[in-house]
Amino acid sequence: MSKVKFAVAGLGRIGKIHLDNLLQMDHVEVVAVMDPMEECRKYAHERKIPHIVNTYEELLVVAPFDSVVICSPTDTHADYVEMAAKAGIHVFCEKPLDLSMQRVVEVLKVVKETNIKLMLGFNRRFDKEFRKVHNLVKEGAVGQPHLVKITSRDPGAPPVSYIKQSGGLFLDMTIHDFDMARFVVGKEVDEVYAKGAVLVDPAIGEAGDIDTAVVTLTYTDGTMAVIDNSREAAYGYDQRLEVFGSKGMAQADNNYEDSHRLYTNKGILGSLPLHFFLERYAAAYRSEMASYVASLKNGDAMAVDGTDGLRSLQIGLAAIKSLKEKRPVKIAEIGN
Amino acid sequence: MSKVKFAVAGLGRIGKIHLDNLLQMDHVEVVAVMDPMEECRKYAHERKIPHIVNTYEELLVVAPFDSVVICSPTDTHADYVEMAAKAGIHVFCEKPLDLSMQRVVEVLKVVKETNIKLMLGFNRRFDKEFRKVHNLVKEGAVGQPHLVKITSRDPGAPPVSYIKQSGGLFLDMTIHDFDMARFVVGKEVDEVYAKGAVLVDPAIGEAGDIDTAVVTLTYTDGTMAVIDNSREAAYGYDQRLEVFGSKGMAQADNNYEDSHRLYTNKGILGSLPLHFFLERYAAAYRSEMASYVASLKNGDAMAVDGTDGLRSLQIGLAAIKSLKEKRPVKIAEIGN
Amino acid sequence: MSKVKFAVAGLGRIGKIHLDNLLQMDHVEVVAVMDPMEECRKYAHERKIPHIVNTYEELLVVAPFDSVVICSPTDTHADYVEMAAKAGIHVFCEKPLDLSMQRVVEVLKVVKETNIKLMLGFNRRFDKEFRKVHNLVKEGAVGQPHLVKITSRDPGAPPVSYIKQSGGLFLDMTIHDFDMARFVVGKEVDEVYAKGAVLVDPAIGEAGDIDTAVVTLTYTDGTMAVIDNSREAAYGYDQRLEVFGSKGMAQADNNYEDSHRLYTNKGILGSLPLHFFLERYAAAYRSEMASYVASLKNGDAMAVDGTDGLRSLQIGLAAIKSLKEKRPVKIAEIGN
Amino acid sequence: MSKVKFAVAGLGRIGKIHLDNLLQMDHVEVVAVMDPMEECRKYAHERKIPHIVNTYEELLVVAPFDSVVICSPTDTHADYVEMAAKAGIHVFCEKPLDLSMQRVVEVLKVVKETNIKLMLGFNRRFDKEFRKVHNLVKEGAVGQPHLVKITSRDPGAPPVSYIKQSGGLFLDMTIHDFDMARFVVGKEVDEVYAKGAVLVDPAIGEAGDIDTAVVTLTYTDGTMAVIDNSREAAYGYDQRLEVFGSKGMAQADNNYEDSHRLYTNKGILGSLPLHFFLERYAAAYRSEMASYVASLKNGDAMAVDGTDGLRSLQIGLAAIKSLKEKRPVKIAEIGN
Repeated sequence: MSKVKFAVAGLGRIGKIHLDNLLQMDHVEVVAVMDPMEECRKYAHERKIPHIVNTYEELLVVAPFDSVVICSPTDTHADYVEMAAKAGIHVFCEKPLDLSMQRVVEVLKVVKETNIKLMLGFNRRFDKEFRKVHNLVKEGAVGQPHLVKITSRDPGAPPVSYIKQSGGLFLDMTIHDFDMARFVVGKEVDEVYAKGAVLVDPAIGEAGDIDTAVVTLTYTDGTMAVIDNSREAAYGYDQRLEVFGSKGMAQADNNYEDSHRLYTNKGILGSLPLHFFLERYAAAYRSEMASYVASLKNGDAMAVDGTDGLRSLQIGLAAIKSLKEKRPVKIAEIGN
Repeated sequence: MSKVKFAVAGLGRIGKIHLDNLLQMDHVEVVAVMDPMEECRKYAHERKIPHIVNTYEELLVVAPFDSVVICSPTDTHADYVEMAAKAGIHVFCEKPLDLSMQRVVEVLKVVKETNIKLMLGFNRRFDKEFRKVHNLVKEGAVGQPHLVKITSRDPGAPPVSYIKQSGGLFLDMTIHDFDMARFVVGKEVDEVYAKGAVLVDPAIGEAGDIDTAVVTLTYTDGTMAVIDNSREAAYGYDQRLEVFGSKGMAQADNNYEDSHRLYTNKGILGSLPLHFFLERYAAAYRSEMASYVASLKNGDAMAVDGTDGLRSLQIGLAAIKSLKEKRPVKIAEIGN
Repeated sequence: MSKVKFAVAGLGRIGKIHLDNLLQMDHVEVVAVMDPMEECRKYAHERKIPHIVNTYEELLVVAPFDSVVICSPTDTHADYVEMAAKAGIHVFCEKPLDLSMQRVVEVLKVVKETNIKLMLGFNRRFDKEFRKVHNLVKEGAVGQPHLVKITSRDPGAPPVSYIKQSGGLFLDMTIHDFDMARFVVGKEVDEVYAKGAVLVDPAIGEAGDIDTAVVTLTYTDGTMAVIDNSREAAYGYDQRLEVFGSKGMAQADNNYEDSHRLYTNKGILGSLPLHFFLERYAAAYRSEMASYVASLKNGDAMAVDGTDGLRSLQIGLAAIKSLKEKRPVKIAEIGN
Repeated sequence: MSKVKFAVAGLGRIGKIHLDNLLQMDHVEVVAVMDPMEECRKYAHERKIPHIVNTYEELLVVAPFDSVVICSPTDTHADYVEMAAKAGIHVFCEKPLDLSMQRVVEVLKVVKETNIKLMLGFNRRFDKEFRKVHNLVKEGAVGQPHLVKITSRDPGAPPVSYIKQSGGLFLDMTIHDFDMARFVVGKEVDEVYAKGAVLVDPAIGEAGDIDTAVVTLTYTDGTMAVIDNSREAAYGYDQRLEVFGSKGMAQADNNYEDSHRLYTNKGILGSLPLHFFLERYAAAYRSEMASYVASLKNGDAMAVDGTDGLRSLQIGLAAIKSLKEKRPVKIAEIGN
């Protein structure tokens, strides 16, 4: 069986993960890597990647390959996807495609015209805990969903310099939860009400962002979801999900370093959560890439496609508008 | 030590609980009971209550007592409290005092003028799980509170006839959660956004009420709380609480029939929750009445006073207005 | 319906519990109490018990009653049961009947001849956690039982003066676990191997007892049980049960003060266990007495009868012999 | 930095795991693999191992390497270790070294004389759950250990043909638990009492083995441990550990497929355990091999050495003797 040839564009934290996962897969060959940073290029050298280049333009011509994995900064995603599409190369792109609805719509148009495959990196869909809840809901185990609850808290806020370029809490962090809200019940969101505050670090507020939020989503059929976010949970990364429906409730708990318990006269003590997304979602990143590769090989529909990116962005933009205008905002107000 | 003399007005489900708890307390004597129903009067007879009467007017004169416990229908609360106050009798009154802000303000004025003690029956404050979280928050164990999450779901909806007279979901059911939101962090609520739906039973919608809700509260300092309610949880009564703050998180889990686990090739099975409030809050009702009696005897401030009733009603009315007007509503809009 | 008339002999910790539980039951009347201690007699006075006497002889004649509840010191049990039996009075007796097999056999002979009802106070059979496991085993939920595990640890050792008169760890503490081993699977024990050590307090060893033990029981069909005991668990009372069988496993967990969790950067902290047997088994004591009263009224077989006491004592004596002789001991070696 | 050169002898289930783990490690190079089976040789071919041979004799000369990983059948272990030692090659050997004490003593003598490094594959020491308990005990978190409880149950019995050659339950399965008993508290065992039964499958009994066991170990200082084993747990692989001491208790729970909970009117349902040792200990196998490689490179003492293998075998042989002679057996009776 012939191997699928890959290139990886961008070898930051996520790029390294995707590269290493690809290198461990059967029937996959990574022929080229692009990154302008010396440290990243060294990382690729150690893994004996045949071609290592500085720019995306070079990457596209250095050797033939079937698919590119785009892990470069967000503001390059749209251009890089378009360039790959026009070269007939399939794309796995980290979320988000872009922070502008208009630009995303343009890119998806090119993707459609060139008939390439595009998958977006909403890795949490591949987490075994969330997937189990998704599957239970899909099988009808909770009946008709009525309430969805998503808790998503980071162990610590990123630098303010990062926050300034991130698109803000809703597009940088909550966008994963918006995607999860759609994924777990398979319904579209109709309205958003977002409430936010600066409770963790005033510097985040000075940078024009918030660090704590509660967002209420209403689906088109009246079902409601509520997301709570914080940039800093003292006890570590916190990722939980609950779907309540007419026949019951399914919950995914957070994941912990281990399940030990220590009983002393002070109480019962257990371990902290797995530190952050790299630890919590290590297996999810592997499953995600395996899903992409399998869909490429089998010609199946992508598990997360361009429309999924578009919808999450819409919800995020509606949340921003809601926060600013202090009122519930219909998704239709955002347009597409 | 002389005994505190009590009368109980109304021997429905809650009245019976309070009566039995009083009968088991040292230094307490129940001298009279009022209920128009034959079955309830029989219940009092079996417990050898000296005076058993049909009307509140009779009760107030049948024998001297120090305090009355009012468990009659909601629409009698305000009048009964006023009558007791004017007779110099201390009052424990089931929530709510009244569904009208104006009437509550009037009653509290009389309470103040007559200088009687008034305690309101927000029993959940005495639940050991919630009290533990309250105490941890108060001790600073979670630091400065940022997010409060309250889940409150009933095992089944009451008859539509009840719902019609209940004041609606927010004043009948969520009002407990509004009180908990204030209690657990000791802060006042500034703004309410309520989203509701009829997902359990269309008949509830036809009666002008909702059966499922998500309510976002914002405290005056920016802290946020979110409450989710359902009139019907297939797996039973569900009462949970979480406070997330700058230093950590405290959670109170739901309570279950027992903690057994059965492991088979089908999975791991555990018991359902305690059926409903009578079971879940049995100990809380005892602690509540013990707190009232102790405050009476020691001349301490009441653990739940008239203002607590007033504030919860305000939040409830703001939630109703928010649901109707589809926008966040400031508490100040409700007035008092 | 006529009331069942009771007397209570001995108002120590357990006697008070049984008295108060009887006072709260319908169709029960406590007509007399016996205790030589002033403090205990005062306790009975406050509860308005009609007859309060100093000696068991007085008790038996002070007033007519149907049943006596014997909570006096262990060395009086056998005599008191015999005396009641000969007076035609039914007996609820705290465990053990006696520490001598011969004496127990004698007493049971009298019980049989006089045709009175006798129930023994193995309260743990009425604990909701253990009963649930018992019921699951009985229903076949775990299939054919293969392994039973019982953990039973006290929060602290009793005074050495108590230990000296207690009959030793196996007859004082483990005897509850021996009964549980028989109860939970409904099988008889054939062989005992006991291993013990003095690890908590050398003074216990000097008193001729042990404070830590592992006892392996083999049932007549080859099924095995293992009990582990300690006189002092730093984290508090620890009572757990597990039955493993051909189709699965049923577990009863220990019980805790509450189910809260506190998450901080130090880990996740939960509450300690309920302090000791008075707290852990409060509801079990109520159910136990209710079962006794119901059996009396309905003429049903007792839930825990004299044979149950005899068998547990046999196992305990076999354990003592095994520890001393450092070898497995057959129950048949103990005789009866 | 120069790479450590490895050969792998035997590519069965465990050999494949070790090979793949070695292939993913930095500074490691696998130069040769030995297996007589075509399927296994193909597995090595796909991984581009330079030398693939049929016999151990060929392996030792096909290319120079620093260490061999021995995963061939148990009856070859002793010879293979000796041959490697005499060739100056370090050895990682799957447990057990041999089923005969005399042979193990001989091999360890050769290991000592040739001054090679030897590590034994007691993988469970590297499981994060058990290691956490080990570390807590070592740090003194539970004080002085008094009781150790180990539960170890397989999801299903192996074929009777395997059992016949396995050395029996105690040397094949419980030996891991014997090692854990020594490891978790860092003490030596002095006495063994083993009780066993055939409760799962009569064919196992006909083959001269047992399928269910309870083994009590006494350490030299009086501390006790109890192990319970079954060849077939209907709900799957069950691996738990508990250490109770003067200051508290540390527990390691079993590991599950995920932590979801499904709440319906039937109860609360959770996932089954991870299927078997390949799943449960996947990460432990990686850590184990990383520990071996690190010790080789740094010249550190091995985490599990030849004496560890010897001691576990001794306990196993004592258990067999105890079962046969129906009495507690001192380790000293086994000799070494």
